[in-house]
Amino acid sequence: MQSEHTFKQYDAELEAVRAKVLQMGGMVEEQIVNAIDALLEANVPLANQVVERDHAINALEVAVDEACTTIIARRQPTAGDLRMIMMMVKTITDLERIGDEATKIARVANKIYESDRLYTPRFNEIKAMCLQVCEMLRIALDAFARLDVSRTVEVARQDMQVDDDFRAVTRQLITFMLEDPRTISMSLEIMFIAKAIERMGDHAKNIAEYVVYMVKGKDVRHTTVQEMEKEALR
Amino acid sequence: MQSEHTFKQYDAELEAVRAKVLQMGGMVEEQIVNAIDALLEANVPLANQVVERDHAINALEVAVDEACTTIIARRQPTAGDLRMIMMMVKTITDLERIGDEATKIARVANKIYESDRLYTPRFNEIKAMCLQVCEMLRIALDAFARLDVSRTVEVARQDMQVDDDFRAVTRQLITFMLEDPRTISMSLEIMFIAKAIERMGDHAKNIAEYVVYMVKGKDVRHTTVQEMEKEALR
Repeated sequence: MQSEHTFKQYDAELEAVRAKVLQMGGMVEEQIVNAIDALLEANVPLANQVVERDHAINALEVAVDEACTTIIARRQPTAGDLRMIMMMVKTITDLERIGDEATKIARVANKIYESDRLYTPRFNEIKAMCLQVCEMLRIALDAFARLDVSRTVEVARQDMQVDDDFRAVTRQLITFMLEDPRTISMSLEIMFIAKAIERMGDHAKNIAEYVVYMVKGKDVRHTTVQEMEKEALR
Repeated sequence: MQSEHTFKQYDAELEAVRAKVLQMGGMVEEQIVNAIDALLEANVPLANQVVERDHAINALEVAVDEACTTIIARRQPTAGDLRMIMMMVKTITDLERIGDEATKIARVANKIYESDRLYTPRFNEIKAMCLQVCEMLRIALDAFARLDVSRTVEVARQDMQVDDDFRAVTRQLITFMLEDPRTISMSLEIMFIAKAIERMGDHAKNIAEYVVYMVKGKDVRHTTVQEMEKEALR
């Protein structure tokens, strides 16, 4: 028999892991914002800071993984808690990869501002995409924090928008390159930044889907937005 | 007390999940080979087949996830087995994403061969990169099948090679685009294919790292190749 004391300790352990996941989420959000600010404001020190802070996010991923395994081994969680733990393990993988993409943007920012530029690129669309992805991540993490799926479908819908935006940016850059081939190298850098942001959107959507599974017990990965909506509103 | 019968059943369950992971790995390898064949041989039906089969891989991911959660809930696995189960959960996420990248290549192959082409691109470097990534995945899955880490470091080393190859392909395509701007659209498609292959390499490396953790209990993610080698040879 487990005592009341043991139960309280178990709850505290689970709560501590949830807090760590949210802390990691907050750090990743900050990394995205800083990476894009570094890019827009030609802020090389800020870009370097993003690259350096990636280690802290990686370390947090390893720590959460270990904490999850320890709780499972010691506490024999109930089906619901176990589902949450398994989904936290998946969530942090996606968070870590969003962090990687932010680092990539920071590295490209550095590369752009260290090289001799023939022109100053316009980043309006990139900025808009990035703000959208930040909002998606915030909604997904908020859903995880409250275990409330009511807004998760928005994340899936916004992801489709971000994919469209990526295609629009690509088309625009192609036109740009055709008009002036000297812009090819720079345009490709911007395209890889757009690609990184589009990936971040995919990861945010994954996290939203894990929350639906945690709360509803229904796996909505690899389904349509409509099916996800049906589950979320059930 | 658990009876001998229960233990045997548990072993069989764990073995069944391991077999499913390997089955998924085999399917993903086949998807890579078919996607690149579709591209090289202008084989549109084969490209369509790759796109269609992605669903089966997605379904297998969901099934393995559920099987892992069920085993944990019912069997209270030992520390070693639990570590393996947690790493299988991670492994299938990477396998599923390699499958996604293969699908992307197949879609680009279709797009290339459905459009009016101004020139036939050379795919030698792409093919070489792809063969390398296939080999990386095979070594990683083989290490998982045998729980033998002796060749996992090769995967990490080859991943660095694939990253270099990606950069070389990008440089080559830039030269190409500068020489003849009419090749820009096509060159970008090829660049996205190279990017997809580079990603597959990252995922294969992740899987190799999980195997090191399964076998050695040491987390070698986010470390250097040297540290990984030290652990693998320990």
